[in-house]
Amino acid sequence: MDLKEKLLPYLRTVPDYPVPGILFWDVTTLFKDPEAFRTVVDATYELYKDKGITKVVGIESRGFVVGAALAYRLGAGFVPARKPGKLPAACWSASYDKEYGKDRIEMHQDALEKGDVVLIHDDVLATGGTAEAVGRLVERYAPAAVYCNFIIELEGLGGREKMPAGLDITALLHL
Amino acid sequence: MDLKEKLLPYLRTVPDYPVPGILFWDVTTLFKDPEAFRTVVDATYELYKDKGITKVVGIESRGFVVGAALAYRLGAGFVPARKPGKLPAACWSASYDKEYGKDRIEMHQDALEKGDVVLIHDDVLATGGTAEAVGRLVERYAPAAVYCNFIIELEGLGGREKMPAGLDITALLHL
Repeated sequence: MDLKEKLLPYLRTVPDYPVPGILFWDVTTLFKDPEAFRTVVDATYELYKDKGITKVVGIESRGFVVGAALAYRLGAGFVPARKPGKLPAACWSASYDKEYGKDRIEMHQDALEKGDVVLIHDDVLATGGTAEAVGRLVERYAPAAVYCNFIIELEGLGGREKMPAGLDITALLHL
Repeated sequence: MDLKEKLLPYLRTVPDYPVPGILFWDVTTLFKDPEAFRTVVDATYELYKDKGITKVVGIESRGFVVGAALAYRLGAGFVPARKPGKLPAACWSASYDKEYGKDRIEMHQDALEKGDVVLIHDDVLATGGTAEAVGRLVERYAPAAVYCNFIIELEGLGGREKMPAGLDITALLHL
């Protein structure tokens, strides 16, 4: 069975969340199913198992779920990228545009090392603001390579175009 | 080597975070190390592998990290317990006391089913307010059994005493 056909029944859409006019793709219904959750982690593992990933960066906080399971499966470390003030030690910070105003995302300054092979993960690529900011943060550590992965890519929202040219981006489901 | 001796060098303490007078135990330095992260997940897996766990409930958001890896390792589903307004569908909510005022924690009403065998996980058991509230939420679903696990239990803060009597609670490290 095709991955989209297999996983789509486990996703829930919520209209007008978090703001009116947005159709929200809820992955919690996928995470709670042992078989669907395993399928997502294993399918993503297959994409990256030969890349020598040393750190998975999960974006707060839905990106922590598959990100952490993936880090475990790949034998990599897990690093959270978080909202301002949520990480206790010295951070680097990057700002990005939201629908209304700006927001920031932070990583600990000692989260990555020069030469790390980094996989950035989040649940959904929509307009790409957060992921692009995390990509900029990750570059500061002088990694050997950077990859970027999502469970779902919502096409037509310009997310992929916003990411740095040449960045290797995958998504399990294109919707 | 003893687990405490092995893992303690990977933990960082941050004084006066998030508020003055609190010594914060930072687990991000443990998560980022592939070997230490794997050790935590595998050691916790050993504690629960024969319990028939069907769902791991991770507490927002540091509890998502080992919680999700553990769900994957156990072949269980993963369910997030989150701050108010962070879950898009219908929720149940429980309140708990914090140092200053009250807070709430929520779970989707369809997150668990009657008869689930549930493992609640968070990074640190301190005063136990959040974990106790999540324990109350989980009971509403009529689970077959409930277990509760932390990476670190900070002794002397009354966390364990606050949890329901008879609840099976484990922690890898007692500090």
